[in-house]
Amino acid sequence: MEELGSKEIGIAILGLGTVGSGVWDILQQKSRQLQEKTGCKLKVRRVLVNDLNKQRNILVPEELFTDDFEVIRQDDGISIVVEAMGGVNPAYEYITASLQAKKQVVTANKEVMAKHSQEISAAAKANGVHVFIEACVGGGIPIIQPLEECLAANDILSVAGIINGTTNYILTKMIQEKSSFGEVLREAQEFGYAESDPTADIEGYDALYKIALLAEKAFKKRVPLHSVYREGITHFREVDRCFAEEAGYAVKLIGTAIRKEDGLDVRVQPVFLPREHALASIHGVKNAVLVKGDAVGEVMFSGPGAGSLPTGSAVVADILRAVKQQDMSGLIDQKAIEDVQIVDSHRAPYYIRLTGESTAGLMVLYELLKEQQASVCRFESLQAEPGKRQCMAVTSPLSEKQKQRIVHDLKKERADAGTVYAVRIGI
Amino acid sequence: MEELGSKEIGIAILGLGTVGSGVWDILQQKSRQLQEKTGCKLKVRRVLVNDLNKQRNILVPEELFTDDFEVIRQDDGISIVVEAMGGVNPAYEYITASLQAKKQVVTANKEVMAKHSQEISAAAKANGVHVFIEACVGGGIPIIQPLEECLAANDILSVAGIINGTTNYILTKMIQEKSSFGEVLREAQEFGYAESDPTADIEGYDALYKIALLAEKAFKKRVPLHSVYREGITHFREVDRCFAEEAGYAVKLIGTAIRKEDGLDVRVQPVFLPREHALASIHGVKNAVLVKGDAVGEVMFSGPGAGSLPTGSAVVADILRAVKQQDMSGLIDQKAIEDVQIVDSHRAPYYIRLTGESTAGLMVLYELLKEQQASVCRFESLQAEPGKRQCMAVTSPLSEKQKQRIVHDLKKERADAGTVYAVRIGI
Repeated sequence: MEELGSKEIGIAILGLGTVGSGVWDILQQKSRQLQEKTGCKLKVRRVLVNDLNKQRNILVPEELFTDDFEVIRQDDGISIVVEAMGGVNPAYEYITASLQAKKQVVTANKEVMAKHSQEISAAAKANGVHVFIEACVGGGIPIIQPLEECLAANDILSVAGIINGTTNYILTKMIQEKSSFGEVLREAQEFGYAESDPTADIEGYDALYKIALLAEKAFKKRVPLHSVYREGITHFREVDRCFAEEAGYAVKLIGTAIRKEDGLDVRVQPVFLPREHALASIHGVKNAVLVKGDAVGEVMFSGPGAGSLPTGSAVVADILRAVKQQDMSGLIDQKAIEDVQIVDSHRAPYYIRLTGESTAGLMVLYELLKEQQASVCRFESLQAEPGKRQCMAVTSPLSEKQKQRIVHDLKKERADAGTVYAVRIGI
Repeated sequence: MEELGSKEIGIAILGLGTVGSGVWDILQQKSRQLQEKTGCKLKVRRVLVNDLNKQRNILVPEELFTDDFEVIRQDDGISIVVEAMGGVNPAYEYITASLQAKKQVVTANKEVMAKHSQEISAAAKANGVHVFIEACVGGGIPIIQPLEECLAANDILSVAGIINGTTNYILTKMIQEKSSFGEVLREAQEFGYAESDPTADIEGYDALYKIALLAEKAFKKRVPLHSVYREGITHFREVDRCFAEEAGYAVKLIGTAIRKEDGLDVRVQPVFLPREHALASIHGVKNAVLVKGDAVGEVMFSGPGAGSLPTGSAVVADILRAVKQQDMSGLIDQKAIEDVQIVDSHRAPYYIRLTGESTAGLMVLYELLKEQQASVCRFESLQAEPGKRQCMAVTSPLSEKQKQRIVHDLKKERADAGTVYAVRIGI
């Protein structure tokens, strides 16, 4: 065994929840191997928690705990800050203060990064340090570094992924067990796969933050979140599941970012995917990201999208990058991140379901599609119960705006008569 | 646009076949983007070819060609050598000479790296430079860097993959089109998916080199190639395909390296995989590598396993790493690669097919299995044609050595009576 370097790298962990405790565990269990890999001793000097007196199932020496971020900011022995708190405040303040104190930041917090990447990147650049975000997307799956480095010879054409484990678990269970959304959500909450307030997951916000970060890394463009079409899975019903299954589709909540001549087409929505599609076989809490590059073609990265040790694995990999980066003199991508126009030019067929008293809505749909130079390619109708008819149509390709207009007009024309639900087919 | 660095990095490309021309194309087409990413101008100063007068479909300025490696070795303006020739000689001599001249080496040559990694690594270390091998495994799929860096927080437990596109194409076609091995091989040769001498692919040598390199990176252990069990796909027949399909298995040539207490279990062989296995849906010329880490769990990397631009994408990514590495001062893994014991302790059930005049062989099989404390879990027998009976059995788990002993003894006992073929079930 060669002599190991004795330089010590001080680390602070902000937050000791799922991610923070995974990071702690890995740094303790692997301290010798990590020293071999980096030539440095990685030492956790501080752990920031809200409540110093809380009982914890993790063996962190008491003297490391602090509830005062200032202690960390002012400790010059800490050169890497791991932000594992989640949420925007105070995470945003702590990240920028760490950068201003010339500390490298490793974060698993997709929300704060997607909402404030511009300010955070500027603070990092101004202070000659970096922010590492591998753990923000896809839990333990390597995706950010492969995208930035291994695929650096490519112009990226598109990124698409199943990037929220909770919704993928719910959709998988609904299909495997023929259960309703509400039943599976309750089960997911019991097993800890869904939060007690599941809004961020089931309404697609979490996936939105992640696809925005992927798009930023893939295209060097900043995605304005408010311009992105985002739809969750709360309106997906039994009847839609039956139609999808019979027609040979898997149902997935997909985030996509596709490069177009005039901007990026970015969206988060449920999608009916042909069963032979690479993403169609990603089940349960697994995540997968499909990247298309002009040289490489299509590559896919898949694995566990969440969890303490998987996410900890990504954070610790970023800590190692931060350790190495300290000795690198500016040889990193010089291209500035630019703002981008979000466009809606990637057309796809849509499945449209009308629930009402009769098939009259179908006639209205035909007319509305005709106005948009589109048509119905296939339809089915069934009597769900007396006085309740389900009409399901597959349209020719539409833009998102066209689809929204049609759904809006259908609802207006048939306000008396039931509900309208649309799902994109293919990505 | 910020001002770009004007430092020039000189590159030589050895060989202008599939990989070399892909590298040339990408470096030309992307020169501006690559300069933005690195802050340096990447300039190909020399291209080594065998025949200066050969007509080529690629626009390389004539003055760059040379057929004399000495010209490259002595050119101090060349700091990165891309070895894209294949084969062991003279690739090995050129790689070591380049390293001795303190040039970074990027190679796509799995054979020379698997056979000579020790000498090549030693030469790199002695001269303070590096060898980059992303393009050796999985074509354009990022796998070496993710394994070394993104999963650096893990102890890797196993690596398994479909790492030869030619055999995966042949097996996929045999199954999809119910064609024979010979027919599909001829077709693959016509389409350029198989070489005119297909031995390296169909006998599993190519996959052996790749799994050895993956094992070296994953476990920091050097795999002695001669100790590894290697079996190709040339004995796989219609009757085996039918059995696999009926029993719900996909058939894949798999390379595995599994960490065991007393060493590594490394092998290349055809495997019957349950259809729900992540590798079972990797079809055609695609490759995929499944990595199991103690922190991350199971992650998979998949995509195009060969081709000019995909492999070029991996080579150019490595060139960018080489450019960055030049400014890094030793902050890389200090752990030395050690020799490893190849063990045979990972047991699995086997499918065993006996072709002969009667079911008598089955009785012999029962006896032989009994001697090994194993048994038959399932069997089928069918009359293929008059005087030719196929008996197919699935055994309880066996080691590779036990299986080989049983196959050997069956052949000896029944030398008059036909053939014996065995396929592992699961990995």
